[in-house]
Amino acid sequence: MLDPKFLSYLSENYGITFNDKKLVERAMTHSSFDNEHKELGIGDYERLEFLGDAVLEINISKYLFEKFPQLPEGKLTRLRSDIVRTDSFARFAKEIQIDKYLLIGKGEEKQGARQRHTLLEDIFEAFNGALYLDQGNETVDKFLQRVVYPHIDSGEFSEDTDFKTHIQERLQQSGEVEIDYEVIDEEGPDHDKKFEVELLVNGKFLSKGFGYSKKHAEQMAAKKALEEL
Amino acid sequence: MLDPKFLSYLSENYGITFNDKKLVERAMTHSSFDNEHKELGIGDYERLEFLGDAVLEINISKYLFEKFPQLPEGKLTRLRSDIVRTDSFARFAKEIQIDKYLLIGKGEEKQGARQRHTLLEDIFEAFNGALYLDQGNETVDKFLQRVVYPHIDSGEFSEDTDFKTHIQERLQQSGEVEIDYEVIDEEGPDHDKKFEVELLVNGKFLSKGFGYSKKHAEQMAAKKALEEL
Repeated sequence: MLDPKFLSYLSENYGITFNDKKLVERAMTHSSFDNEHKELGIGDYERLEFLGDAVLEINISKYLFEKFPQLPEGKLTRLRSDIVRTDSFARFAKEIQIDKYLLIGKGEEKQGARQRHTLLEDIFEAFNGALYLDQGNETVDKFLQRVVYPHIDSGEFSEDTDFKTHIQERLQQSGEVEIDYEVIDEEGPDHDKKFEVELLVNGKFLSKGFGYSKKHAEQMAAKKALEEL
Repeated sequence: MLDPKFLSYLSENYGITFNDKKLVERAMTHSSFDNEHKELGIGDYERLEFLGDAVLEINISKYLFEKFPQLPEGKLTRLRSDIVRTDSFARFAKEIQIDKYLLIGKGEEKQGARQRHTLLEDIFEAFNGALYLDQGNETVDKFLQRVVYPHIDSGEFSEDTDFKTHIQERLQQSGEVEIDYEVIDEEGPDHDKKFEVELLVNGKFLSKGFGYSKKHAEQMAAKKALEEL
């Protein structure tokens, strides 16, 4: 059963009190737990994930549409897909402690599913689907104002994710150069690693970047280099 | 400029009256028209399409979620993607006469863009984006109750689009057979063709199907055969 501490946590930190506690419990439950505890009759998050996926998409789309009135469609679409992806949703899931309170079966637990980004993404979507059904879209939007939009405002996402291609084009304008990305540090536990990457041009340091994946850190290093050139 | 007949059509047939006429005009305008008539300052549908895409996704998702309370997530997802695709949206676009009233430049007109399914899809999305901004989601949902949901209710879409694979498996259970699909008729003008396809097993007629594309008609023939076997 869902730990009541999660419900208190939601209430204290986000002012959210579910009318239908069964609904949020289902959103937090993986099929492996449901299978092991059929007598509880919880069900699993999967159908709620189907709904929540679309709930997140419309709210984030509307936010971007209004926040960036001059941004053309192509850039809006790229920015949206930079937000609506596994790693980002897994981060938001952890921010509201989904990783701590989700319900999974014993086998999955042993295999480390609790920290699997695709699972955290699914449950973040399901949670928003449950919130939408229980309280309507206005509450979802308010919740996202706390959990998602500040990350957009702080510029963590970009409509131009391909900084690596851009910096390569810039650097090779006056002839071939060798461009390397090197991971120089990894911080944090396995399930919450942060990477530090250096961008080297002909073996010389140009910039560095941090990210939640190697690829992300490389893009951040390339972005930094573009700003500095 | 947008033909006022389109606005009357919307009002008479769907009870829709836009507060912001400029918004619906923009939703109906391709960039090629905007470029030829910069002095009108209409803009084009592209940003509205970005928003409308998500608006359609959430409403159709919610409808499916509620209409099929027992359908598992995988089937819901397949059913949704059978609805949320170019050919279906192009059909809905024609149903509300978007093809008749959309604004495109002269060059595009000559190349037949007015009947291009991808363009009709885009404008159907943009139209729903404009409706959402102008009147809120409740009006969009009411509009879809007229234009989209009846097609779902009538079983035109399926959570199991791969009837061809299924019938092949069934037919080959007791050894190899030759399966052919033959187009035997095409009806209607180029931009609104309907196909009739026969499914032949070892050269003998088994079933036939109708569809808005060759592929669709083949699937319908396979579906018919599965029902009859």
